[in-house]
Amino acid sequence: MGIMPAQVTRFLSMSLEEDLGPGDITSALLLTGNQRSKAVFTAKSGFILAGLPFAQEVFRLVDGGIKFKPLLKEGSKVQKGAVLAEITGQAASLLAAERVSLNILQHLCGIATLTNSYVQAIKEFLPSTKIVDTRKTMPSMRYMEKYAVRMGGGGNHRFGLYDGILIKDNHIKAAGGIKKAVALAKKGGMHHLLKIEIEVEDLKGLKDALEAGADVIMLDNMSIPMMEQAVKLCKKGKKDKTVLLEASGNVTLENVRSIAQTGVDLISSGSITHSAPAADISMRII
Amino acid sequence: MGIMPAQVTRFLSMSLEEDLGPGDITSALLLTGNQRSKAVFTAKSGFILAGLPFAQEVFRLVDGGIKFKPLLKEGSKVQKGAVLAEITGQAASLLAAERVSLNILQHLCGIATLTNSYVQAIKEFLPSTKIVDTRKTMPSMRYMEKYAVRMGGGGNHRFGLYDGILIKDNHIKAAGGIKKAVALAKKGGMHHLLKIEIEVEDLKGLKDALEAGADVIMLDNMSIPMMEQAVKLCKKGKKDKTVLLEASGNVTLENVRSIAQTGVDLISSGSITHSAPAADISMRII
Amino acid sequence: MGIMPAQVTRFLSMSLEEDLGPGDITSALLLTGNQRSKAVFTAKSGFILAGLPFAQEVFRLVDGGIKFKPLLKEGSKVQKGAVLAEITGQAASLLAAERVSLNILQHLCGIATLTNSYVQAIKEFLPSTKIVDTRKTMPSMRYMEKYAVRMGGGGNHRFGLYDGILIKDNHIKAAGGIKKAVALAKKGGMHHLLKIEIEVEDLKGLKDALEAGADVIMLDNMSIPMMEQAVKLCKKGKKDKTVLLEASGNVTLENVRSIAQTGVDLISSGSITHSAPAADISMRII
Amino acid sequence: MGIMPAQVTRFLSMSLEEDLGPGDITSALLLTGNQRSKAVFTAKSGFILAGLPFAQEVFRLVDGGIKFKPLLKEGSKVQKGAVLAEITGQAASLLAAERVSLNILQHLCGIATLTNSYVQAIKEFLPSTKIVDTRKTMPSMRYMEKYAVRMGGGGNHRFGLYDGILIKDNHIKAAGGIKKAVALAKKGGMHHLLKIEIEVEDLKGLKDALEAGADVIMLDNMSIPMMEQAVKLCKKGKKDKTVLLEASGNVTLENVRSIAQTGVDLISSGSITHSAPAADISMRII
Amino acid sequence: MGIMPAQVTRFLSMSLEEDLGPGDITSALLLTGNQRSKAVFTAKSGFILAGLPFAQEVFRLVDGGIKFKPLLKEGSKVQKGAVLAEITGQAASLLAAERVSLNILQHLCGIATLTNSYVQAIKEFLPSTKIVDTRKTMPSMRYMEKYAVRMGGGGNHRFGLYDGILIKDNHIKAAGGIKKAVALAKKGGMHHLLKIEIEVEDLKGLKDALEAGADVIMLDNMSIPMMEQAVKLCKKGKKDKTVLLEASGNVTLENVRSIAQTGVDLISSGSITHSAPAADISMRII
Amino acid sequence: MGIMPAQVTRFLSMSLEEDLGPGDITSALLLTGNQRSKAVFTAKSGFILAGLPFAQEVFRLVDGGIKFKPLLKEGSKVQKGAVLAEITGQAASLLAAERVSLNILQHLCGIATLTNSYVQAIKEFLPSTKIVDTRKTMPSMRYMEKYAVRMGGGGNHRFGLYDGILIKDNHIKAAGGIKKAVALAKKGGMHHLLKIEIEVEDLKGLKDALEAGADVIMLDNMSIPMMEQAVKLCKKGKKDKTVLLEASGNVTLENVRSIAQTGVDLISSGSITHSAPAADISMRII
Repeated sequence: MGIMPAQVTRFLSMSLEEDLGPGDITSALLLTGNQRSKAVFTAKSGFILAGLPFAQEVFRLVDGGIKFKPLLKEGSKVQKGAVLAEITGQAASLLAAERVSLNILQHLCGIATLTNSYVQAIKEFLPSTKIVDTRKTMPSMRYMEKYAVRMGGGGNHRFGLYDGILIKDNHIKAAGGIKKAVALAKKGGMHHLLKIEIEVEDLKGLKDALEAGADVIMLDNMSIPMMEQAVKLCKKGKKDKTVLLEASGNVTLENVRSIAQTGVDLISSGSITHSAPAADISMRII
Repeated sequence: MGIMPAQVTRFLSMSLEEDLGPGDITSALLLTGNQRSKAVFTAKSGFILAGLPFAQEVFRLVDGGIKFKPLLKEGSKVQKGAVLAEITGQAASLLAAERVSLNILQHLCGIATLTNSYVQAIKEFLPSTKIVDTRKTMPSMRYMEKYAVRMGGGGNHRFGLYDGILIKDNHIKAAGGIKKAVALAKKGGMHHLLKIEIEVEDLKGLKDALEAGADVIMLDNMSIPMMEQAVKLCKKGKKDKTVLLEASGNVTLENVRSIAQTGVDLISSGSITHSAPAADISMRII
Repeated sequence: MGIMPAQVTRFLSMSLEEDLGPGDITSALLLTGNQRSKAVFTAKSGFILAGLPFAQEVFRLVDGGIKFKPLLKEGSKVQKGAVLAEITGQAASLLAAERVSLNILQHLCGIATLTNSYVQAIKEFLPSTKIVDTRKTMPSMRYMEKYAVRMGGGGNHRFGLYDGILIKDNHIKAAGGIKKAVALAKKGGMHHLLKIEIEVEDLKGLKDALEAGADVIMLDNMSIPMMEQAVKLCKKGKKDKTVLLEASGNVTLENVRSIAQTGVDLISSGSITHSAPAADISMRII
Repeated sequence: MGIMPAQVTRFLSMSLEEDLGPGDITSALLLTGNQRSKAVFTAKSGFILAGLPFAQEVFRLVDGGIKFKPLLKEGSKVQKGAVLAEITGQAASLLAAERVSLNILQHLCGIATLTNSYVQAIKEFLPSTKIVDTRKTMPSMRYMEKYAVRMGGGGNHRFGLYDGILIKDNHIKAAGGIKKAVALAKKGGMHHLLKIEIEVEDLKGLKDALEAGADVIMLDNMSIPMMEQAVKLCKKGKKDKTVLLEASGNVTLENVRSIAQTGVDLISSGSITHSAPAADISMRII
Repeated sequence: MGIMPAQVTRFLSMSLEEDLGPGDITSALLLTGNQRSKAVFTAKSGFILAGLPFAQEVFRLVDGGIKFKPLLKEGSKVQKGAVLAEITGQAASLLAAERVSLNILQHLCGIATLTNSYVQAIKEFLPSTKIVDTRKTMPSMRYMEKYAVRMGGGGNHRFGLYDGILIKDNHIKAAGGIKKAVALAKKGGMHHLLKIEIEVEDLKGLKDALEAGADVIMLDNMSIPMMEQAVKLCKKGKKDKTVLLEASGNVTLENVRSIAQTGVDLISSGSITHSAPAADISMRII
Repeated sequence: MGIMPAQVTRFLSMSLEEDLGPGDITSALLLTGNQRSKAVFTAKSGFILAGLPFAQEVFRLVDGGIKFKPLLKEGSKVQKGAVLAEITGQAASLLAAERVSLNILQHLCGIATLTNSYVQAIKEFLPSTKIVDTRKTMPSMRYMEKYAVRMGGGGNHRFGLYDGILIKDNHIKAAGGIKKAVALAKKGGMHHLLKIEIEVEDLKGLKDALEAGADVIMLDNMSIPMMEQAVKLCKKGKKDKTVLLEASGNVTLENVRSIAQTGVDLISSGSITHSAPAADISMRII
């Protein structure tokens, strides 16, 4: 996990405030003692585990005296009934952190699980073809969601508009075509550690992009046969340098294997983050 | 919509910063002119519309000079191909706001649509039975998600731990039983505009809760027949005052009609917020 | 006290910054050593104690190494000369936290003391009649002031505009009368754990409110005899369900007993928060 | 007023969030239209006016479309019944800003009024003797309270620990006496635009302070006769440079004239800020 | 300039608060009227202009009513005596914004000017060799300083630790050598739009880095002859793909031309940001 | 150092976020283990040490588990090669804090060193003449830079617009002359612990300022002979009270001794903060 980014901690604090407001009035009425309790996170369905470090941070933010002990490894396959973590602390603190931590954990496990089903569907083509995410993420949760994608076996696309050049149709129109767009990007002032990706819709576009020297080419909403031709074209045209090809648009669990079979390098999917159903996890005080 | 809560505006700003960081480097390279452009939000599938005011706020935060014109009414049924809104402004500003606003709008429309499918499933029992949400929401997005639930025809449960008393199993254990828990809550110091809800798992618990004078009783994970008995019990026992009954746990599109048929007042579902797939919406510069 | 709300901690930090700015220049000149000192909070008049947990939080925010030991119980009656707490830490840290913590403590003890004098004035009518606060509180200090009211033996009204429905004259006018207003509120989309309170000015209004099914009725600025009639009317009209009556407006220490004698359930007073003189407390390094 | 400090605006926003939380639920139910309304602030008792600029800022923060028109001059004497300001805007916005703006305005007018009664009590000694405030202010409201003191005819003491050197008993003890303390402060590294004030408890201390070259001397809790001697001593001892004398401790409306009569330059009072009862002001929609 | 990043605006606000605190007390005493004034920014020495958009933002933050009119183009060469901008607004507002805006503008013009002197020194080698900046920037001013570098004719290196992979000696040691480090970075989970740069100290290291497939190689503190050999080695070894070479360490105005002559692609210098003397600019009210 | 002001900590956090963004991607790839490492800060040139407490705070903010051990005293003269501090912690944490802490430390040591060279140039006139700073500081770094000036042997001028009255040419024009300006300032409402400084450009202005009773007079851009006359004039005119004279404008290392020789009390220089070249310091993991 490395160092928790300050933005994530700030977001978790904001989310706790959303739920707690000026205080948990039910616990104030009923949990007046100071007794320490022990709670467990239990899987109520099977899934790929992702997010315990963030759940732990939520508990830490509520009450520095809570002990949070992860029992399973991030990225591992969890069976229904498995205990994910043990948490010890004052009952009122445990209940104050419960919902926010579970909402995050259930969402991230959902993403890791859905990602993993895509990864499994193309496993014979790994690692030359990768499932990657997009910027179609829940607002302010991108760091955590991209982490969950990695835990599910996927890879990441750029984190934001600031750390990757991706020239889309609107940019191409403004520049006056694919070749001009790539040329502009190459001579522009961005730093030398960034590659240039451009979106194309047909083989003509692909050829232009290759000639212009794009580093990565996104095949947007292409049919399987067209993608096959695209891959061939690249193999032929570029002996020494491997341009990367990314398939994008309408990727589903049903067609992802066929897409991988074309030989593209990356398959990006928005669904793995924006439409993953939550995993089912409960916290129980024991 | 009323006044946009400051917390929501702050959250949207934070989400924009997540995506923009120190700047959109692709637009910086390719959209150097100051030309104004016009964009449209278009439905790429059918759904219930919810969230244009928040999308609009995102554009306003990026650039006060943008004009955002909603074309359809919140809560309305949208057909594939419909244009939801027109947005005019500098191209670079439009692209900077695009992803965050769409991520929110797609998520909220997804929630409104899923909620509405539950509401349609029980429509013959409206309005005496209501579909309501839970606290199982995306962190920091609860205000917007609860709004989307209302746009889909559902109702809201409490907003957080601070504006509703809901006594759950852990509280009951700590208090020493249902009757003691309700009694404690009644004599405690919370203000007089709050009702008291308590969770029960069987008919014995229900009777205790009724005797103790709970205002609302959550029937947690009960079978349909048990819920039918619960409803009867309440009708009999309480001539003059209507205690409310909330069905909770494992509510699905398949069983929601049967649950409504038991005569409960409220059916709460976490799925309508935590597992609603995103609606499909695109922004296109024209 | 429960968990310190994040908003309170943020407010205390802001208040410390107000006093400290870029630093305590006097201590910088004169307290150059690192010697630990011990200080005491001493009562210089008699009062009801309220607020040590917040004073403690102020010291913690200035310097995590300070030990703050409360010596008396919150809500207890304190005699002139009593020592409230012992604080140990670096002299410069103690002096940096002194004024902000005392300003808060003196204000909260003042509120608890004034509240308690109202409570004592109606003690024969307790607990069926309660003294409660209002939203007439110092900006950003409501959580702490409402806590002080409870320590003084009073109860709380709603915390803000978000956790209680209170229909006032302006709302009634907009809705077209008391009955319409209550009806609108009942069918509106607020969650089912909130009661509905409405303000009335005469017995006609009271009857309308009762018929419309309000849960709580505020008798605004009524004379004692009118309040007596109001109480009778409610007893008669509502066998099975107890509507609550709140007396409001021009409540003073002189008339509060007569008001309680009418049999109302709640007596709300703005003075107990907005006009309580500060208690006198000093910090002395020993 | 000059430029509104960013800290004040931030504090007012925080205070609005305290009251509004995720929204005014009563207005959401009952004020659904967009009609513009007009409201007035009316004095329900007589007082000195102070604080309309801050009240105005509160309305601006809630809704930029509100027009706030002050009708009376800050610092003026207001009669019961007078209209202080007219405010026009959407009804829901007016009600959302009402309580926070009134809480501030009532408090500041209370301070200006109490300050003014002290000022009137010593009017024959003005301007050579001034009533000044202290750091005994409501947390985070010091800027506004010090403004109210000026509107009431008083003067200000330092704003915080950072913009004035005031050597108190604890500092003196640490330094090893008054002379050493002043000497340390003089040779220390603070900037050359700051004077040095020191607290003394008797005439011996005063003499030491004079010899050491203090610029201002606080006579802490001295009797009237001792203060008279102190004044004489200073007149005699310092022909060419006027050291300032500040009377402090147990200043009341009863004794303030006698204190002024001794000839001290400044009389500081904590009560004018920490114990001023709120003025009575209402907002009515017309 | 594009959209002003929210982080920059936040930083400028913080810097204004640093200077203004609770208010400009001199202006409060002396500029009591509301008269509008006009001020000009004048160059008191020659320099390359950079930073007017940020200076303008400072004035906007102080007072939205100020008009700020830039008179010269960013990046242009300014002669002593030239007027850079005209600013109109209330005198007190102009003086409140003066120092912060000038501090920034003087610093950024200083950077652009120093950068430009390096660029001029190697002008015959442009654009195949570029002067670029480093992360040795003033804390929180990196975005603005990198902008100034571009205005001076330089290019940027990565913005932070998050948008460029740069493997340094400590990383190499941890990985067990250059080849292993590059291999680890290549198979790690970073996104596909990022290149990999590695630091080498000698020709052996260079060869390892080339073989491992690094995209960019930093020649750290190499002598001129060694750099010449490095360039030759790359030309020979890599027919089809151009690896980039960056010269780093002890770059001065004296040796920068000789470095450029070796044929490296990038020359990075910390001095252009961390040691650029401020340009001399004054604001005068006319 | 005393208590670290909250504003400084907030600024350091913001600066860390600037550099780290969502994470150090190189370390994430290459420093996967949890091994603790030890690093040293080493002087690569000679300088006056200033800023270790701030560097330490940066490390603390990144990772509370880091041990930072300063080895040399602030303000001491450091030789090339000296080790300034030892830091122990996880390698990834050390590298995450490295650049921000070094950027600050190098800048502050640069300021202390340059200040000290001015101080050394006038050492025979110490302490009656002092080198002091100005408000020409890096935005948001004033507290730290003024600290560095003190470590270099200099003194401070006011911290901001809020803690010192300094009447400049624009104020004088608005007031209608020097005498009127001082009179206005004297009778205005600022607190009694602040002195009044005014800027004059010639001997006529000086005489006016003396007569008006200014406490400090800034001699703006005067020639050496004029300053000599100014000093004489003050000595003659003011037997008993010492007005302070500050020389300001175009102070350089070359002329500072001559200025001191005139007998002025303070010599203020913007260059010592805005144009000090960074000291050279490296961090090395050992």
